[in-house]
Amino acid sequence: MNVNDVSFERERPDVYGDAHPKALLRAIQEDGDYLVQLANQHIVSGDQFNQETMKQLFRLAAKIESNPKRFSSPLQNKILISAFYEPSTRTRLSFESAWHRLGGDIMSITDRSTTGIAKGECLADVAEMFNNYGDCVVLRDTQESSLFEMMDALRIPIINAGNGVDEHPTQALSDMYAIFKWCPELIDPANNTSIKLGIIGVPNKMRTVRSFLKCLSVFPHAVSEVVVIHDSASETELFGPGQREELESRGLKITTSTDLDACLPTLDVVYINAISWEGDTFNTYGSKFHLNAQSPLKENAIILHPLARGEELATDLDHTAHNWYFSQARGAVFLRMALLTCMVERAERVIDVV
Amino acid sequence: MNVNDVSFERERPDVYGDAHPKALLRAIQEDGDYLVQLANQHIVSGDQFNQETMKQLFRLAAKIESNPKRFSSPLQNKILISAFYEPSTRTRLSFESAWHRLGGDIMSITDRSTTGIAKGECLADVAEMFNNYGDCVVLRDTQESSLFEMMDALRIPIINAGNGVDEHPTQALSDMYAIFKWCPELIDPANNTSIKLGIIGVPNKMRTVRSFLKCLSVFPHAVSEVVVIHDSASETELFGPGQREELESRGLKITTSTDLDACLPTLDVVYINAISWEGDTFNTYGSKFHLNAQSPLKENAIILHPLARGEELATDLDHTAHNWYFSQARGAVFLRMALLTCMVERAERVIDVV
Amino acid sequence: MNVNDVSFERERPDVYGDAHPKALLRAIQEDGDYLVQLANQHIVSGDQFNQETMKQLFRLAAKIESNPKRFSSPLQNKILISAFYEPSTRTRLSFESAWHRLGGDIMSITDRSTTGIAKGECLADVAEMFNNYGDCVVLRDTQESSLFEMMDALRIPIINAGNGVDEHPTQALSDMYAIFKWCPELIDPANNTSIKLGIIGVPNKMRTVRSFLKCLSVFPHAVSEVVVIHDSASETELFGPGQREELESRGLKITTSTDLDACLPTLDVVYINAISWEGDTFNTYGSKFHLNAQSPLKENAIILHPLARGEELATDLDHTAHNWYFSQARGAVFLRMALLTCMVERAERVIDVV
Repeated sequence: MNVNDVSFERERPDVYGDAHPKALLRAIQEDGDYLVQLANQHIVSGDQFNQETMKQLFRLAAKIESNPKRFSSPLQNKILISAFYEPSTRTRLSFESAWHRLGGDIMSITDRSTTGIAKGECLADVAEMFNNYGDCVVLRDTQESSLFEMMDALRIPIINAGNGVDEHPTQALSDMYAIFKWCPELIDPANNTSIKLGIIGVPNKMRTVRSFLKCLSVFPHAVSEVVVIHDSASETELFGPGQREELESRGLKITTSTDLDACLPTLDVVYINAISWEGDTFNTYGSKFHLNAQSPLKENAIILHPLARGEELATDLDHTAHNWYFSQARGAVFLRMALLTCMVERAERVIDVV
Repeated sequence: MNVNDVSFERERPDVYGDAHPKALLRAIQEDGDYLVQLANQHIVSGDQFNQETMKQLFRLAAKIESNPKRFSSPLQNKILISAFYEPSTRTRLSFESAWHRLGGDIMSITDRSTTGIAKGECLADVAEMFNNYGDCVVLRDTQESSLFEMMDALRIPIINAGNGVDEHPTQALSDMYAIFKWCPELIDPANNTSIKLGIIGVPNKMRTVRSFLKCLSVFPHAVSEVVVIHDSASETELFGPGQREELESRGLKITTSTDLDACLPTLDVVYINAISWEGDTFNTYGSKFHLNAQSPLKENAIILHPLARGEELATDLDHTAHNWYFSQARGAVFLRMALLTCMVERAERVIDVV
Repeated sequence: MNVNDVSFERERPDVYGDAHPKALLRAIQEDGDYLVQLANQHIVSGDQFNQETMKQLFRLAAKIESNPKRFSSPLQNKILISAFYEPSTRTRLSFESAWHRLGGDIMSITDRSTTGIAKGECLADVAEMFNNYGDCVVLRDTQESSLFEMMDALRIPIINAGNGVDEHPTQALSDMYAIFKWCPELIDPANNTSIKLGIIGVPNKMRTVRSFLKCLSVFPHAVSEVVVIHDSASETELFGPGQREELESRGLKITTSTDLDACLPTLDVVYINAISWEGDTFNTYGSKFHLNAQSPLKENAIILHPLARGEELATDLDHTAHNWYFSQARGAVFLRMALLTCMVERAERVIDVV
């Protein structure tokens, strides 16, 4: 083995938009008050943010992504409790990387079986323990209710990093951040710009999709139509009670289709996700839907995927300009850096004008 | 979901004594020499501390609890090896939080099955490895003997965080710290103040109780009587060989009872613990003993519990002034901060007058 | 229990060479260019280093070991992803200790079953995730191929910390570092000094031995002969295809023997290792070969062992001057500190003359 075989290039051609955060940064005027107000708030659901708060979060994320080294110490002396009772390396490391880059310390729980909960300890008592030990909690659990059982006893903020089939709000914020990075014009209604967006999945069964649609509905001017693409087996369970009605009342135009290839030529953004969690296990929906380099995508269309991916998304798309799912994953770290800093009362350290 | 639903209050009314550390701080005169001497000592047992060393530890803990932000860097560049071969989130996070708050770094082992020990490596070799990798070891193991097998090979200090049914000395120090915070007058014999203390549990079978009684016996002037409250099934195994005699020889007056409700109206402090560890599993003792808001407690009595709790301690006590078990858990972090700082030769960074 | 029982000595008589790094440091002239070139390289194999690069690594390791406190911050704001899909506490903690001592932060994966890989995620996608989350990856996996599957997608450096039966190059560099610390004269061909070295093990089946022999072959002047000592059952599988020929072509003189006690009186260095990994499990080779204080070792011979040890290496050797396996383990932390610093482009912070 010689040295050439083990060398690598740090840089890559910008096929999926790493250069874009500066454009988004310029498109939004700073108003730090919205960020300061995130202190002393739990992050539970995709619909707890108004449009201005989201815009300021995206702006701060873009500012950090444009120059990460400037933000290496805002969380000094702050401790994160990273509690992944439902194991997940990808999301756990995304949060932990965000926290470490900001200069904070971390304590991890990666396995429910090693905890007091396994011995019958109630979650309110666990929350009381967390109050004494850290400054912020990131929680993932297979049970939808665990988050709410903890919240009442907490005096430090908690982030819902996936609670059963319910929600995964920071994933949804990251999805939105990717879209606005790709097309900053969408952020301002005055630009009269909007996209047609397809979602391959089942909004009733997928927490990522459920949270994403809630976030999307805060920017109805940016979306001319949302097409939910599903297999016929999912027809009757596509939306939960009131889910579609609530989204439509906020101004989203929602249609459905079972024909992916008929939809693709019309879509600007394709959001694909094949996995739906149920308790400790998952189901795969729409296994007949695949995207690959031969799919009839619009030339400028982008693909989003919350990852990890399975067979539904072919790797031959990775090196095309359609691939924004890697940028989406990368941006999630910066979006989380922005949010975490605000939650633990350190917004004033990252706002330009205080 | 609107913002009000996800907001929370950081402060709580002081129903269980968070404001007390300053009174204890004032009640003890600083003498840093006792703290400096803790360098190069392993922490193994509840009876290795004399009265003055404990007082200085409680004083330092109270000083840190009164103003934690002043103590964010004493353990800079120090590495903790957090070895929980018997899994425990509560105790592990308490130690890790203490270490992180002091500015140190941590390496965690949370599962015996992933270690060389599982492949037959002897504990002395593991200790030799720890010498090279860190500055302090916290060890919990189901085997009483593991601690002692490691100690001989160690050239860095180790803390016993629970060794089988034997001992858990830092829990006991935290228990004592809670009592003295609640009633600082107890610290000085000249005040002629003492309490009657009830222990619901089996001193022979519970490592927390075993260590607590040893610590208590260092302050015999502060305790007029210890009542061990037990079910009749535990009668013959209540104390280990010589255990009661040793405690009595140090000046503790020990009585026993099987009637909780008859005792309660006379007790100033009630220490309850229903779980006893044996090897990899645990037994529940005295399941007929329950404390709840209807229990005939003295008006000013406080309840201590090493947590996690089961059915023996009802949550309707949580918001009463009897609840000092949450303060006890909170204080454990600060007690451990005080002890750890001294053990790794950084006492001079936290003593006021050197 | 009294205080004397829990006190310990921090220092030990230097029976196994902790005082030696300064002599090695003096024996090598600094040439930082070779270290700077390690940036943007993956560490895959024992044969990717030339003689001068290794010498500079050993020099830097010796400089750090001579005064570790001088090097507490070169990796500030750098994040290590410590991915041990094949669990190993010893190697994981060695890397993590090295990284922490240099001031960096760490995210650990200690169990393959909790990762996306268990759900079918491909390793290239995991690598893409790592690009976003950290600055360096340490990977151990039971599969030889995992390393290579990740490498193509990585834009941050990766270290092979053991890939199946293939290689474990940083262990081999640490082995070499121990030998040169013990006898700095070996480093310079002009000294006309060489050793006879025995390896108890199967070069074809042991990743540590395989990598060690590759490193050794870079310094053929230092080794007069390598004797591979094996049981007769291993006769036909002692070397892989081309393995022996490649080593001999680089100038190593290799002989074999099945008689340990006949060889021992002639050996200057005895390298022993009884375990060979195969997939998720391991085999024990040469169980009839034991070293103990009665073995007919040369008076000045030293023993090396990659640890953890089994019955093949008796503890009665630990307190003799033959014991360099503890020094070898200790030195591995400093060797890794040297290498990691260079890999993440921080060499200029630890080189004396830039």
